[in-house]
Amino acid sequence: MAKTLAVSPLAPTAFPELPAIAGVEFASVEAGVRYAGRKDVMLASLAPGTAMAGVFTRSATRSAAVLDCQEKIGFQSAEGAAIIVNSGNSNAFTGRNGVESVKAVTNAVAQTLSLPESRIFSSSTGVIGEPLKHERITAKLSELAGKLSSDGIEDAARAIMTTDTFPKGATATISIDGQEVRIAGIAKGSGMIAPDMATMLVYIFTDAAIDREHLQQMVSALNEKTFNCITVDSDTSTSDTLLVAATGASGVRVTDQSVGFMEALRGVMLDLAHQVVRDGEGATKFVTISVTGASSDNDAKTHGLAIANSPLVKTAIAGEDPNWGRIVMAIGKSGAPADRDTLSIWFGDTLVAEKGWVSPTYREEDGAAHMKNQEITIHVDLGLGGGTAHVWTCDLTHGYISINADYRS
Amino acid sequence: MAKTLAVSPLAPTAFPELPAIAGVEFASVEAGVRYAGRKDVMLASLAPGTAMAGVFTRSATRSAAVLDCQEKIGFQSAEGAAIIVNSGNSNAFTGRNGVESVKAVTNAVAQTLSLPESRIFSSSTGVIGEPLKHERITAKLSELAGKLSSDGIEDAARAIMTTDTFPKGATATISIDGQEVRIAGIAKGSGMIAPDMATMLVYIFTDAAIDREHLQQMVSALNEKTFNCITVDSDTSTSDTLLVAATGASGVRVTDQSVGFMEALRGVMLDLAHQVVRDGEGATKFVTISVTGASSDNDAKTHGLAIANSPLVKTAIAGEDPNWGRIVMAIGKSGAPADRDTLSIWFGDTLVAEKGWVSPTYREEDGAAHMKNQEITIHVDLGLGGGTAHVWTCDLTHGYISINADYRS
Repeated sequence: MAKTLAVSPLAPTAFPELPAIAGVEFASVEAGVRYAGRKDVMLASLAPGTAMAGVFTRSATRSAAVLDCQEKIGFQSAEGAAIIVNSGNSNAFTGRNGVESVKAVTNAVAQTLSLPESRIFSSSTGVIGEPLKHERITAKLSELAGKLSSDGIEDAARAIMTTDTFPKGATATISIDGQEVRIAGIAKGSGMIAPDMATMLVYIFTDAAIDREHLQQMVSALNEKTFNCITVDSDTSTSDTLLVAATGASGVRVTDQSVGFMEALRGVMLDLAHQVVRDGEGATKFVTISVTGASSDNDAKTHGLAIANSPLVKTAIAGEDPNWGRIVMAIGKSGAPADRDTLSIWFGDTLVAEKGWVSPTYREEDGAAHMKNQEITIHVDLGLGGGTAHVWTCDLTHGYISINADYRS
Repeated sequence: MAKTLAVSPLAPTAFPELPAIAGVEFASVEAGVRYAGRKDVMLASLAPGTAMAGVFTRSATRSAAVLDCQEKIGFQSAEGAAIIVNSGNSNAFTGRNGVESVKAVTNAVAQTLSLPESRIFSSSTGVIGEPLKHERITAKLSELAGKLSSDGIEDAARAIMTTDTFPKGATATISIDGQEVRIAGIAKGSGMIAPDMATMLVYIFTDAAIDREHLQQMVSALNEKTFNCITVDSDTSTSDTLLVAATGASGVRVTDQSVGFMEALRGVMLDLAHQVVRDGEGATKFVTISVTGASSDNDAKTHGLAIANSPLVKTAIAGEDPNWGRIVMAIGKSGAPADRDTLSIWFGDTLVAEKGWVSPTYREEDGAAHMKNQEITIHVDLGLGGGTAHVWTCDLTHGYISINADYRS
């Protein structure tokens, strides 16, 4: 935890310029929850009537904050709302104390901002199994409330980092009926150091006016093809949280017909999801796995995740080894339908295998050349139907072992 | 492949003394399939009337030899039988050529030993996607037939090794109605070096007389609690094969009432399964995961495998880090029912967590002390029902990355 990691070689060159989102203000402070000398709590204040949508970890051991958010997310309200997030302690597997900490924090935020407690959404990320010193957070609420401003989103992105090596942000601006609507989002994940668990937190804000149920439908659908299609190491956090807030402050209404908005939101979500992979522990390669020709989209995703989670595939990529046999192996074990004799595999644009064997046109040096790139594409066509999926991952390197095994908690 | 690996620190001190099994003879030769200067083909000849049972990989991309064995395994016969195995080439994902190679080898063995082709079982293990030079095997069949002897089982165990660091054998002798029955088995797995895939091959022989269907039922049931409960890296081979041959040459009949035989067979299978884990790539710790209190045995196994396959759990063990939070995480993601508040976790005899939080009696130094052992036990009680399972695995170390990423194929 004390160890500072070098910035990922796959990091973007800079944090993007994120526009202010009408109806949203941010503040961040140093509360000393666990880390010293850095901001570790962020507060986002949301205008009255903001529609909230969310997607959460399906872990059976999810944290108290996640359970609290899940209870609150399904209701529309004309009131304002707030999101409060701390890093340094995930308040997961902390028994009844954990529930009381969530209550203490959300109640204090509600009082500070004169909002109903049912509109306060909280997240915690960091070490697990240790009591959250929530009084360190509540002691800072007046300071946070006083600092709220529309341009504090980059500081907020930094405040939610744990072992991330760079802050993550993404934005989109689109025009609906000639009026501009903005989307801006931040995320943290998925660097880990013992004793932390992977946690992914994502907060996206828009000034569009959207019906809550419609927003939730969009977010749930898009999540399946963005955040639920990335994997660093197949291990699922107890705290994963994605919250989307639509303030409506632009006065522009998004309806079922606003295809452009959903596409823009998809772009922001995918950008943030990719940044999480680019900050994967020990990652040196960004890998896109494209699956076509499966019996269904679900089967395509099952195959894609089997490839992306295979330690043998990931170590081969780390070693720049065009080891297509391991792709065949991963497809075979995935559990989804596959036929050895209709399977085709490409590395980049190079056809590697087809009709149950290596392609007659394949030359090992072509595959090896593609594997030297920092961005790798593996394309698999099952030859069975019309199902497709994209999955994104990184390689498995000595860096991963060092981060997770070499340093004692 | 050319690289010689140091013998696993978890290896047994010596290959066990395996008794001759009446009705079985072995021979091994250097055929130069891929390796030079070592035996790489083994032949086992089985007495007339031998009952054969088998369990095979469920991979959708399984090899031609596996498919051929599966077709042949379900029939009883009064004829003799044979098993022929080569290392160095798995003949997997080799298209129609692969099928022809299996046919060529099994046909030639049938002719050499004057047996029906339907009684010849073959396996291949090693590099995938390369044509099997089966003529190198068939050229050696006369030599193999001439060398058949009842005491060749240790050489056979060595001939089927690929990147294994030690040969694997196990035995049991039991008394049924005052008459001795012997069981002896050999296995290979699961060291890997690019471009090989994990392959586990297991051959077990007994001189007991057992009805084929009864033998298959026993083997299938025992397999679920032995070989199907081990994992090194969650990657499933295209070639996994377990064959059990009961020659009947002892004249001792095993019936449904012969509980002792099934227990002895279980012991041999479990011993071989453990040896495969002890030869896991880069392994420095042998880990037993014991799950109790699950809603069902299946759920217990799901939780056990989720823990055993978690890269975060495996790296924590490598780092001798009593990181029980990662156990909680793995249980949460497994998909099987779990209740955070009824969960208990032990490292060795030390109660670590209970009732949704760290145990008040737990001291970090006690957990840390257990993690320093070469043999680690993790016990999880779900507190939900009577389901139990045992799963065995090893840690995930820099050695695994080195074996699979550092050396180009």
